[in-house]
Amino acid sequence: MTLTITPLPGLPMVAPGDDLAELLCAALDRAGILPAEGDVIVVAQKIVSKAEGQFRRLADIAPTDAAVRIAEQTRKDPRLVQAILDESVAVVRSRPGVLIVRHRLGFVLAQAGIDQSNIDHGEETVLLLPKDPDGSAAALRSALAERLGTAPAIVIADSFGRPFRNGVTGTAIGSAGVVAHVDRRGETDLFGRVLQVSTIAHADEIAAAASLVMGQAAEGIPAAHLRGQIIAGPGKAADLIRDPETDLFA
Amino acid sequence: MTLTITPLPGLPMVAPGDDLAELLCAALDRAGILPAEGDVIVVAQKIVSKAEGQFRRLADIAPTDAAVRIAEQTRKDPRLVQAILDESVAVVRSRPGVLIVRHRLGFVLAQAGIDQSNIDHGEETVLLLPKDPDGSAAALRSALAERLGTAPAIVIADSFGRPFRNGVTGTAIGSAGVVAHVDRRGETDLFGRVLQVSTIAHADEIAAAASLVMGQAAEGIPAAHLRGQIIAGPGKAADLIRDPETDLFA
Repeated sequence: MTLTITPLPGLPMVAPGDDLAELLCAALDRAGILPAEGDVIVVAQKIVSKAEGQFRRLADIAPTDAAVRIAEQTRKDPRLVQAILDESVAVVRSRPGVLIVRHRLGFVLAQAGIDQSNIDHGEETVLLLPKDPDGSAAALRSALAERLGTAPAIVIADSFGRPFRNGVTGTAIGSAGVVAHVDRRGETDLFGRVLQVSTIAHADEIAAAASLVMGQAAEGIPAAHLRGQIIAGPGKAADLIRDPETDLFA
Repeated sequence: MTLTITPLPGLPMVAPGDDLAELLCAALDRAGILPAEGDVIVVAQKIVSKAEGQFRRLADIAPTDAAVRIAEQTRKDPRLVQAILDESVAVVRSRPGVLIVRHRLGFVLAQAGIDQSNIDHGEETVLLLPKDPDGSAAALRSALAERLGTAPAIVIADSFGRPFRNGVTGTAIGSAGVVAHVDRRGETDLFGRVLQVSTIAHADEIAAAASLVMGQAAEGIPAAHLRGQIIAGPGKAADLIRDPETDLFA
């Protein structure tokens, strides 16, 4: 079965309190798409954070000594560094231009996912990740189900860098209605042997696939619709966060 | 523009010397697809390796003392460990059940990408990665262009695990005709600010997207066709290998 991925352009600038379900339904309608069970709507982290008002004004932030020290080392604004530290449980790596942390949600990523680009609240405002992206996805799914009569799955996607490989890829930070982490342990291959590759980051592959049509923010396409080959079911994007204690690569 | 990803099932078991271009053209024909410029054919690493005869018989391998020592630690067959070491330039991580290496091609991955499943040459034979996957992709692209009159891009995909996150994702180990690593540094966002996310692992996103329809080996769908939203142009999958000297996470 062919998988189709359709960009959903034309969403207005999202502001705190906006109803994303309403905006997405309008965008789906413009694209001529009536979502069905088993479809996925991928939504950029940025518009979820904006709708939830996850802004911080740098002017309101008094950096601690630790933030000032890291800001000198990384050559970043100490108020921004404080905002990053406030979102994080540990600094993983810091050097000039680079501040990689373990986010309170468990993600290991640059700058705690805090965004300074494409924000229409002035240079001095930054945008944080959603407070609870899996919860945001579940709420958005419910709101869409109320409007549509069916409940497509939701994946909230961000662009993450990775160790060992150049470039960012679309990555799932929140999801609902899709088996984010598919466990195939115990299944056998064509010759009856147990599969070596045993678990699949299905929601990350969905986010990466959607990224191909959403591009980056400059193109302003903050959502996409996927149909076909999706493994619907219970699960959440947090299932994809590896326990630091069992990280094979760490 | 909608991106379509179509699985190409029904390829026969691939054997050394088989003409992949011929097999793929037959599969495209069965799927009713005439590839156009700008399309991508994603091919599983496994069938490329098989066509190239990248097999090793474990019975032919005499493990060194180092391999025996690592085999004890990782609880793997010492002959398999020797095959892994022969493909690698460094051991990144070893412990019971786990042997992660830097492959001679630059990839950091488990077991040097050596495969023991879905191999129809008996239990005692393993399958290595292609010798030069970017070269394999370029050769396959040329062979397809001769048959089709147009040259779709090629991505050779494998499933890689990753630090920090559970589950494998489709990853590009070879490519031709697609800008594997897209550099957007210097471009500005909707508000004229320079984009923070500056480079994109486009070929990895293509591999991950194709993985959604190819599934894992048990389903036996070793290729897919993508149309739409592909950034065609020069580049190779090796562009996605991060220089260990500049790895932000290392």
